[in-house]
Amino acid sequence: MSGNSFGNVFKFTTWGESHGKAVGVVIDGCPAGLPLDETYIQRDLDRRAPGSSAYTSPRGEPDRAVICSGVFEGVTTGSPISIVVENADADSGKYADIARLMRPGHANYTYLRKYGVFDYRGGGRASARETIGRVAAGAVSRKLLEGQGVSVRAFLSAVGTACAELAPAAASVSALWEKETAFAAKSRIFAPDALAEADFMRQMDEAAALQDSVGGMVSFAANGLPAGLGDPVYAKLPALLAFAMLSIPGSKGVEFGEGFAAASGRGSAVNDAFVNRQGKVMPESNRAGGMLGGISTGLPVYGRVAFKPTSSIFRPQRTVDMDGKEAEFKLPEGSRHDPCIAVRAVPVVEAMCLVVLADALLMNRSARI
Amino acid sequence: MSGNSFGNVFKFTTWGESHGKAVGVVIDGCPAGLPLDETYIQRDLDRRAPGSSAYTSPRGEPDRAVICSGVFEGVTTGSPISIVVENADADSGKYADIARLMRPGHANYTYLRKYGVFDYRGGGRASARETIGRVAAGAVSRKLLEGQGVSVRAFLSAVGTACAELAPAAASVSALWEKETAFAAKSRIFAPDALAEADFMRQMDEAAALQDSVGGMVSFAANGLPAGLGDPVYAKLPALLAFAMLSIPGSKGVEFGEGFAAASGRGSAVNDAFVNRQGKVMPESNRAGGMLGGISTGLPVYGRVAFKPTSSIFRPQRTVDMDGKEAEFKLPEGSRHDPCIAVRAVPVVEAMCLVVLADALLMNRSARI
Amino acid sequence: MSGNSFGNVFKFTTWGESHGKAVGVVIDGCPAGLPLDETYIQRDLDRRAPGSSAYTSPRGEPDRAVICSGVFEGVTTGSPISIVVENADADSGKYADIARLMRPGHANYTYLRKYGVFDYRGGGRASARETIGRVAAGAVSRKLLEGQGVSVRAFLSAVGTACAELAPAAASVSALWEKETAFAAKSRIFAPDALAEADFMRQMDEAAALQDSVGGMVSFAANGLPAGLGDPVYAKLPALLAFAMLSIPGSKGVEFGEGFAAASGRGSAVNDAFVNRQGKVMPESNRAGGMLGGISTGLPVYGRVAFKPTSSIFRPQRTVDMDGKEAEFKLPEGSRHDPCIAVRAVPVVEAMCLVVLADALLMNRSARI
Amino acid sequence: MSGNSFGNVFKFTTWGESHGKAVGVVIDGCPAGLPLDETYIQRDLDRRAPGSSAYTSPRGEPDRAVICSGVFEGVTTGSPISIVVENADADSGKYADIARLMRPGHANYTYLRKYGVFDYRGGGRASARETIGRVAAGAVSRKLLEGQGVSVRAFLSAVGTACAELAPAAASVSALWEKETAFAAKSRIFAPDALAEADFMRQMDEAAALQDSVGGMVSFAANGLPAGLGDPVYAKLPALLAFAMLSIPGSKGVEFGEGFAAASGRGSAVNDAFVNRQGKVMPESNRAGGMLGGISTGLPVYGRVAFKPTSSIFRPQRTVDMDGKEAEFKLPEGSRHDPCIAVRAVPVVEAMCLVVLADALLMNRSARI
Repeated sequence: MSGNSFGNVFKFTTWGESHGKAVGVVIDGCPAGLPLDETYIQRDLDRRAPGSSAYTSPRGEPDRAVICSGVFEGVTTGSPISIVVENADADSGKYADIARLMRPGHANYTYLRKYGVFDYRGGGRASARETIGRVAAGAVSRKLLEGQGVSVRAFLSAVGTACAELAPAAASVSALWEKETAFAAKSRIFAPDALAEADFMRQMDEAAALQDSVGGMVSFAANGLPAGLGDPVYAKLPALLAFAMLSIPGSKGVEFGEGFAAASGRGSAVNDAFVNRQGKVMPESNRAGGMLGGISTGLPVYGRVAFKPTSSIFRPQRTVDMDGKEAEFKLPEGSRHDPCIAVRAVPVVEAMCLVVLADALLMNRSARI
Repeated sequence: MSGNSFGNVFKFTTWGESHGKAVGVVIDGCPAGLPLDETYIQRDLDRRAPGSSAYTSPRGEPDRAVICSGVFEGVTTGSPISIVVENADADSGKYADIARLMRPGHANYTYLRKYGVFDYRGGGRASARETIGRVAAGAVSRKLLEGQGVSVRAFLSAVGTACAELAPAAASVSALWEKETAFAAKSRIFAPDALAEADFMRQMDEAAALQDSVGGMVSFAANGLPAGLGDPVYAKLPALLAFAMLSIPGSKGVEFGEGFAAASGRGSAVNDAFVNRQGKVMPESNRAGGMLGGISTGLPVYGRVAFKPTSSIFRPQRTVDMDGKEAEFKLPEGSRHDPCIAVRAVPVVEAMCLVVLADALLMNRSARI
Repeated sequence: MSGNSFGNVFKFTTWGESHGKAVGVVIDGCPAGLPLDETYIQRDLDRRAPGSSAYTSPRGEPDRAVICSGVFEGVTTGSPISIVVENADADSGKYADIARLMRPGHANYTYLRKYGVFDYRGGGRASARETIGRVAAGAVSRKLLEGQGVSVRAFLSAVGTACAELAPAAASVSALWEKETAFAAKSRIFAPDALAEADFMRQMDEAAALQDSVGGMVSFAANGLPAGLGDPVYAKLPALLAFAMLSIPGSKGVEFGEGFAAASGRGSAVNDAFVNRQGKVMPESNRAGGMLGGISTGLPVYGRVAFKPTSSIFRPQRTVDMDGKEAEFKLPEGSRHDPCIAVRAVPVVEAMCLVVLADALLMNRSARI
Repeated sequence: MSGNSFGNVFKFTTWGESHGKAVGVVIDGCPAGLPLDETYIQRDLDRRAPGSSAYTSPRGEPDRAVICSGVFEGVTTGSPISIVVENADADSGKYADIARLMRPGHANYTYLRKYGVFDYRGGGRASARETIGRVAAGAVSRKLLEGQGVSVRAFLSAVGTACAELAPAAASVSALWEKETAFAAKSRIFAPDALAEADFMRQMDEAAALQDSVGGMVSFAANGLPAGLGDPVYAKLPALLAFAMLSIPGSKGVEFGEGFAAASGRGSAVNDAFVNRQGKVMPESNRAGGMLGGISTGLPVYGRVAFKPTSSIFRPQRTVDMDGKEAEFKLPEGSRHDPCIAVRAVPVVEAMCLVVLADALLMNRSARI
């Protein structure tokens, strides 16, 4: 699993920095015969970069996905699908002042320690533009999963101290989740309901007013999965999902089903009993989050990801420069930053969940003789 | 990353079921020249299976690690290190009664759905015996890391509603962690201090008295790491660790640094400022958990793993059999189960942290020209 | 692809040295539901080590394959299949004299340069005993392929300057190959017919009489393959097979179909025309060796592997010791060596062909939506 | 090892069809700190597509390599290097006539059988344009290897029945090879000397005159390699090279050192004795091709690749269409094809040798503690 590739059978590699010529993704291992076009992918890219508001930094030109290979007459051919998105001409001059400063909460310190070199314009590979490739790969996965009756949605479930009332981990997760994600799909900040939306915005407003930022949480769920996805030992489905989620910039933790709450509970209250539903054996409830022993049960898979507050804040911060001289870190004039990165992370969490499931679905094809 | 293998450069594969002839691990990619013998590995295996108490199920014969290859005259040769541990003759007869029952919270349902076949004696690959191979691979990693000045320790940080007072995520994590792990190394339940030990035992006693089980949490930390481990995008160090931790049976979540708490905080309070310490640029505090942008900063890497309560409880549970007929699931006569799997998970969390770091250290050798 | 593992979906790792406790293989990725037992594997292991003759060095106790995991009630479970073969107590004392000498044609020089350490008893990982694991993995693959109507056979096609008259690369390869391999299956030296057998033995006798050794060639063919195996670019079927064949100790080259002869031919004479055979479109002839553009056509896949003469010869050879002092290399008293390693390589070539095809078959399951 | 990626640590993925928008390569795992620019890569791309002559089909606009990421201020950053080459507007209309015909010697039959879909314009992934990405990755590898004192060159060593007199496999391979490759670097057809060049051209002229094509061979050699590259068992250096060479379109076989000739020789004549050269222990001769036990000895690594005749010939060929109806396959009007693909394969063989060695060099960094 090299640094910039993800997946086993359905595999992709992202490339590009925010100030290079373009960013892109190469998807290798997508089965032939899948209907696909640029419009389908563009829809997810547009969700990733919603129109500017107080809660997401403004966009210039929309990111335009161009499929350069792997699709012929509207259908995938089994060859690598290369998707390229050009970078708009970016003014890298404004970074001159901070080029030599360690940025609190940012990756430039560690990149320098690791590589001895750092593309100081806009964050290098740590740039949010890297996630364009993830979302494009997620869109292709979504197409593949749709054909199997699987749907995946994510929503913003907490901002700062405001929490959306979350679904009890019952079989009803499915129904509730539909209501929540239906609202989230229309919410500018991917909130699950009007109340949460208002609360979340208030949290962001308060932080912004103090030139500060705030953390948040993203919930995700997959419906319609067959039982059997994931492998028993290391390639457990929750392990693959955890790997995916912790690879998203700013994420600090992940949990599945009842998650951390299960750690303080009792076995009799956490186990899901098995029942016979119209001749089908299945768990009665879904506290496990749709997975047992690392393998999907057929019930919805769901979890949550914690995101730290945006590292870039307008308040000046103490730091040092490359030579160790004390300095004050201030964002370059004209910078715009989201008060809460969890908002923008919603489509990325969804994309990573999609790619993991598409991959697991294909891997599972060799489970039986 | 096939189902039963872990790692990239330092790679291992575990094999074996609890009722087969043996269990084992093959480590491929361990550098040549590392001093290693069976005694060193045995020490970690012994920690994994502490003498019986009310809190861990009793052991029969100790698990004896035999190095079958890859070591010559006390030194690794660069060839695969095969370590085999024989299974004691196990009475598989007692499983006859439950062979056809779905076990709540267990993997036999999903194994059956995936593979169409299940070794019903003792859990198949979901058996805790699979972790023997992990701990043996962890011991080899520990030897490798020791030579680089890196040490890794884990301890039990919560049982049920009892929580050990955790280190504030300051640079002082290092000092506190040493105190905690020194105590944990001697504690029968890997508790960080006497107070926590007593609290944790009480939680387990209460659950056991009710024929029930209880969840828990395991904290881990690595000291002495160089900066630069981990890759910027998918193979981020926290992503690799999350993948490792969620592959441990019973784990339901993981967090790094301030983790989920960071999701409700403000940027100004979560960012670590950079300072000059005797000519060395480094973060002043360590709320980030020793990683920025997915790469180690050189400060201690730490995190926590949540474990659900032991699924096997003595209280009878509702379930169905393979044909969907309603049944009651009762543990076979003479079964012994830990009231809290988090206790036994401590050496496994430690081992998984060790193997991830050894692998990351070797991978990093090709980061620069 | 780490050093001691092979395969992508059907993946195995071999371990062990000739003078360690045992040698073995762990197969990960074998589908569940495959009938398998030790007897089936033992049959291939026995072929690998034919009873002693003038042409193969004598065997002591037969190598006994023990399946330690992954098979339950006679059927694979989807878990890793660990197969262990104990090493007989070997007298490593006889190697003392040559422990410090560079062995012409052997790997101890390069192992020392790479690892700084070398297990001088019997060749370390370069020992022919490593191939036991390959043959065991090949047997499991054979079982898997049999169920799909695929059969694979190899035979000895040349020894020194004696060449078996080879099949013209016509569609008739199939018929001829059956005749040849039927004979080879019974021949002590895997020769394709009585004439070749006599010629080959004469070549070996002549070399042995001069305390020398002789090279040889092994042909292999697979019948009954579906079209579509192999990937278009790097994971071409011939590339995977070439990788496999050149990993066999002593191999110096490989060719497919008309191979090197095609390099001196004309396109009009090398291309295979397409025809309609009872409603099925297929190539009329099979000069291509059953593969076009790296993908199987459905016709037999065949090729040849060249093996150098056995490096260990009884004739004394000039060399130096570790310190660079001139020395004479003489085989230890009581050594027995085959005059032609190609003979023993036949079952190994067959095994490697089997594992590549089993893997390609499983990989191909994700080619289409 | 997914279908369109190559390598382990130094890893690349190529994408693109001849009639899509562009072709390209993403290189992941190139160490940071390597000086690199487009001019350096362009030089190798220009060698790949020499000005039109009777022996290579004419080029239109030169292929222009654009580095889209991974290089900052003239130095690699450790991030993926994405190189894109636009496709000139190609007239795909001319393929209409043959869109439904099976092309003898081509991949469209097998692609259709595998994927059920085929981009009939110009060969899809089997197009020679796919090799642009290989050559670009080779150029980056060359830069990396140059810094370690390693040089790699390939030349055309046979066309049809004309063979360049090849270096005897003595230590002198090095000297001779320099002379040969110096000439080859200037030869329009990469021939090793004037005599061979004339012979080769004659072979091609004769074939072309008959509306036919002819096969050929490409030799390659690497000088200045350290001892120790390659792993003992499956990832042997010759195995990795064989995998690379057989992935090149049209290749039918590969051999190393004395190769197939060794199969008919005696051990006493094939083994290389060890000697002490100015205090350095090394093989006296180099019949082994610079590798023993799969690991480089420090002497030049060399081998040969056999290429079949160009499949596209102007002579009409019998075939059938998708429905099995008999047809005659004639190249579309205005097609231009090389009489011998081995000529154009020379820079590709060189590139694949370069990438294997760069990868092996980086992998070897973790061989010792």
